[in-house]
Amino acid sequence: MPLTNNSLHSPQLLLSAARNNFMKSKHWSEFELIKHITRNNSLPNPSVLLGIGDDAAVISSQKNKLVITCDTQVENVHFRRNYMAPQQIGQRAIAVALSDIAAMGATPKFILTTLLLPSDIDHVFAENISKGLSKTAKKYDAQIIGGNITKSPFLAIDVFVVGESSVRSLTRKGANPDDLVCVTGTLGNAHSHLLKEKYYAVSPRIEEAHLLSKNKNITSMIDISDGLSSDITHICKQSNVGVEIFLEKLPRSKNTPIDFALHGGEDYELCFTVNPNDVENIINTVKKQTETTIAVIGKILSKRKGLWIVETNGERKPLVSKGWIHSG
Amino acid sequence: MPLTNNSLHSPQLLLSAARNNFMKSKHWSEFELIKHITRNNSLPNPSVLLGIGDDAAVISSQKNKLVITCDTQVENVHFRRNYMAPQQIGQRAIAVALSDIAAMGATPKFILTTLLLPSDIDHVFAENISKGLSKTAKKYDAQIIGGNITKSPFLAIDVFVVGESSVRSLTRKGANPDDLVCVTGTLGNAHSHLLKEKYYAVSPRIEEAHLLSKNKNITSMIDISDGLSSDITHICKQSNVGVEIFLEKLPRSKNTPIDFALHGGEDYELCFTVNPNDVENIINTVKKQTETTIAVIGKILSKRKGLWIVETNGERKPLVSKGWIHSG
Repeated sequence: MPLTNNSLHSPQLLLSAARNNFMKSKHWSEFELIKHITRNNSLPNPSVLLGIGDDAAVISSQKNKLVITCDTQVENVHFRRNYMAPQQIGQRAIAVALSDIAAMGATPKFILTTLLLPSDIDHVFAENISKGLSKTAKKYDAQIIGGNITKSPFLAIDVFVVGESSVRSLTRKGANPDDLVCVTGTLGNAHSHLLKEKYYAVSPRIEEAHLLSKNKNITSMIDISDGLSSDITHICKQSNVGVEIFLEKLPRSKNTPIDFALHGGEDYELCFTVNPNDVENIINTVKKQTETTIAVIGKILSKRKGLWIVETNGERKPLVSKGWIHSG
Repeated sequence: MPLTNNSLHSPQLLLSAARNNFMKSKHWSEFELIKHITRNNSLPNPSVLLGIGDDAAVISSQKNKLVITCDTQVENVHFRRNYMAPQQIGQRAIAVALSDIAAMGATPKFILTTLLLPSDIDHVFAENISKGLSKTAKKYDAQIIGGNITKSPFLAIDVFVVGESSVRSLTRKGANPDDLVCVTGTLGNAHSHLLKEKYYAVSPRIEEAHLLSKNKNITSMIDISDGLSSDITHICKQSNVGVEIFLEKLPRSKNTPIDFALHGGEDYELCFTVNPNDVENIINTVKKQTETTIAVIGKILSKRKGLWIVETNGERKPLVSKGWIHSG
């Protein structure tokens, strides 16, 4: 019984939809999808005491500090079906959620996925989303151990991650005046791709974050989801400090405008602050072990001095956190 | 900038929606909503090392066995705005997710909530959903410590719960031939309400589950979400047994048809199996401590004997797990 928004005039149909929860759908079965999700996640794991197939999953952790987060991808808000393949949609949903775990310097371990699936999606499409989910989880040594599949008027994926914390969680709070501001990789690529309606693969910086979390000279960290200008402002607010960002230092690909690097979101690179004495060592260590480049892009100031950008000609302007759409 | 599905012709708008994540919406701000969610959850809790406001939450648990689950409520699938108030929608979203934790005999501790909010919802409606979420979490001694708010073409709420497991998790597996089948409360009420387009308040059986989980003579447990006929079948499959259910024993309110009690979902009562020697003790203990009535409704058989219902006239018919909509 395909269920569309228009077909919901009767409370009986409403109940049926709620109760069946896909189990009897002709379009796809929850069980088959779950098999797909688990296929690439089926290695025995002594930490998973009970996986998919009961009311909840049971996990065991020797660490008594856990990091939990969730992130959602909604069709026509975060992605569009006409320029992403279903596996890519699944890949992206896991990657953006794992990026939040990376930003805390934690290690992702267990994942629950909620799929909200409209009736115009067939079982092949749904299975390919699931493949993208499970392959990406596996790539980062995390395991999908449960979740939920429901009918919905629109396609959306919600991903819940439980990670194990390092001894010290890296938060947005902790930056000190004179700390240097660093970012991994390049900025503005996601925005460039999106304007060309091209698929952009998010790579959560799990390995880099793991290395960074071990270093006590790193004082705060965030992942760049809203855009550098917004995310460094989060660090400044939480740490009660100011900052200056040097525009010419922003790492970007050839032809990426500076504004994209400063305001364009969705890069999912890490932005962190570090004691200047240790910055060279950190850059070298991360480069050697992960091949990822780290750029120094600014300096933390006292709160009194405020938030600034330094233009390529040396001119100083107030740093305003804004999305690209608002800056034209 | 209200964002509707129709306005999404430009990739710039798409990016803006993704990046801003409500922070700049004129309709409501993520921050204000989060304040509402946390208002009733603001008691200091030494187990919450880091709450709302960073990339992820950090929790500490002395138990090294955790139970995790998620459940989703989607507008026009699980509820309709025209016969539920926003607080009730929030209440229901938390309650159904907690019911899965109860079904494992676990104690809910930490909650993340994802709100998918369409542009036709104003901030008062959104705040009232949040009130429903936080009040219900508090009622069951759980704390909302994070989550996610996103624009969406439709209203949906996804709730993730982390619970602490009792020494022994009560799963769907473990029922033995000659065990008795029991249920809490009454069955079929949710279905009756829904047919009358009336609001039905879900009460997760947290306290009852906690008592039951301490008793070693209870061999399996599930919550009744799909309907008794479906959910007892899950227990039989996982436990590799058969069952007979006595229709006249099904606890139901006056005027509730037997078919509603047998097949109607959404009751969120507990169904469990127990060694017959201890059933009287269990019924008395739960009644005394929670005022909740437990009814014995059937008996577990060997797998070879199959799954049966016994009609009020003594006639035996095969038990078919089905929703009410399919039984007419």
